[in-house]
Amino acid sequence: MEKIAIALHGGAGTIAPHLLTPALEKAYLAGLEAALDAGYQVLKQNGSATEAVAMAVVTLEDNPLFNAGKGAVFNHIGGHEMDAAIMQGIDLKAGAACGVPSIKNPVLLAKAIMEKSEHVMMASQGALEFAKQNGIAIEDDAYFYTEQRYQQWQDIKGSDSFQLDHTEQKGEKKFGTVGAVALDYHGNLAAATSTGGMTNKKYGRIGDSPVIGAGTYANNATCAISCTGHGELFLRSVVAYDISCLMAYKNMTLKAACDLVVYDKLVKIGGEGGLVALDHLGNIEMPFNSEGMYRAKISLDGVKEVKIYK
Amino acid sequence: MEKIAIALHGGAGTIAPHLLTPALEKAYLAGLEAALDAGYQVLKQNGSATEAVAMAVVTLEDNPLFNAGKGAVFNHIGGHEMDAAIMQGIDLKAGAACGVPSIKNPVLLAKAIMEKSEHVMMASQGALEFAKQNGIAIEDDAYFYTEQRYQQWQDIKGSDSFQLDHTEQKGEKKFGTVGAVALDYHGNLAAATSTGGMTNKKYGRIGDSPVIGAGTYANNATCAISCTGHGELFLRSVVAYDISCLMAYKNMTLKAACDLVVYDKLVKIGGEGGLVALDHLGNIEMPFNSEGMYRAKISLDGVKEVKIYK
Repeated sequence: MEKIAIALHGGAGTIAPHLLTPALEKAYLAGLEAALDAGYQVLKQNGSATEAVAMAVVTLEDNPLFNAGKGAVFNHIGGHEMDAAIMQGIDLKAGAACGVPSIKNPVLLAKAIMEKSEHVMMASQGALEFAKQNGIAIEDDAYFYTEQRYQQWQDIKGSDSFQLDHTEQKGEKKFGTVGAVALDYHGNLAAATSTGGMTNKKYGRIGDSPVIGAGTYANNATCAISCTGHGELFLRSVVAYDISCLMAYKNMTLKAACDLVVYDKLVKIGGEGGLVALDHLGNIEMPFNSEGMYRAKISLDGVKEVKIYK
Repeated sequence: MEKIAIALHGGAGTIAPHLLTPALEKAYLAGLEAALDAGYQVLKQNGSATEAVAMAVVTLEDNPLFNAGKGAVFNHIGGHEMDAAIMQGIDLKAGAACGVPSIKNPVLLAKAIMEKSEHVMMASQGALEFAKQNGIAIEDDAYFYTEQRYQQWQDIKGSDSFQLDHTEQKGEKKFGTVGAVALDYHGNLAAATSTGGMTNKKYGRIGDSPVIGAGTYANNATCAISCTGHGELFLRSVVAYDISCLMAYKNMTLKAACDLVVYDKLVKIGGEGGLVALDHLGNIEMPFNSEGMYRAKISLDGVKEVKIYK
């Protein structure tokens, strides 16, 4: 038995076998596995949980299939406003960036905010300024252009509607986010989340991803959590910290806490989505109340699992 | 006995009798009492807790003594970036604006986001655009100019330092925030918080005030909370929701939960500040671990209390 573990997600929503071509399904699975392996390698080499979740999320951000970094969706003026957060369980240090343009890997900006500033959260142009001063990689608009995301934006551009990610057919909902949780050899937990938000989004909308306690949380005493779902409902439910509190104050197991929050509390308010969770003992949960969730894990026993559907 | 109650704060920090002139002390007390009375009148006239906290916070925002709205501090380029949030306990609906310039009453923008949008949180220029489209009052730079705040900025402008609010002498810390909690005749709770943040702040820094679960939270099943303190530490501690969870999951009283969080958990990590809290039974707590906190309340018995020092 190793004492390291990692889990990640690439978004949740209406994801069913008949909606993905075999080639696309294969590409998603390969993308998830590549990120999983990259994060796990960090842990194997005695790297920290913080470095491992950053590496896993960077790998997902660099993959245009996922709505984060390179694959970030277009906002209502054809730009990209990205959100990311990271938190480490050893000292509850955290960093978050919201509504920030032009950053190649928003999770690395969140990490720099955590490690190099006295702040936890920075927004928009101010966050970009901090990124530039701290050597965080910047990309131009061309980098963030992907044909698929552009078409998704064209489909609803000019309307007042926005989409949680991409809608291939009416009635579909996808929550495009990526995130990871890890446990390292030192017994430390960490969590990170990154997203491009909603296609055609306006008004500088921010979801749960960059909000410590809502979309992202880590505490060595309990668990590490990264969420993906209908951000507004996850925000109002303070989802990630709720799971931590159920463990800390009600002595629930990680599984019991996750089940209560994802399958009961969130369902009651229409909060569709899911999350990846890892406790200080190395237990992993990846619950979701949507049709599917891109997800992957390597457990304490070293067994790898990469899945999309239920 | 009435079944209504309200409490509010105007910031915490190094606030001691020898640091305030009698005239200034009187002005602070009058400002707190005016906001308290304005909010209480809403409750007396059978208004909602949501309307009451909005009214109390608007009154504090309009008072240049407090770091919110008209009295908001200057950021590092001489502008004003304000944060506000509101949440109602009946349905856990919430609205928040962060890093937004030019808004006369940021709490009313947060309320409009809650009531008129599908979102919870909006940032910066996007939030301003939403405000303009929804008839929220905008003011020019002259409105936000106050001699006191300008001098505070001049004192540290050009340096890399920032200040939590205003520092009259070295070693002083003030956490300039305003906030209110209320319980209405229908048994509904609400909380609201508003701030101009830190003098000379850079990088679009956001504190705990607009973060649901950290600086602001309300749930009819437990309590309503508005915080003021060192935002980064309050954010990482998810302070407001922590108190709610201690009540919900550990069956703590409001007082026990507040005491644990403010006098133990926050103190251990150096999290200076305080909060106002009101539970569904009408109990009020106003704990702070700093030297003073501008605060006021009207309890279920109708007794009014307006205080600054311990």
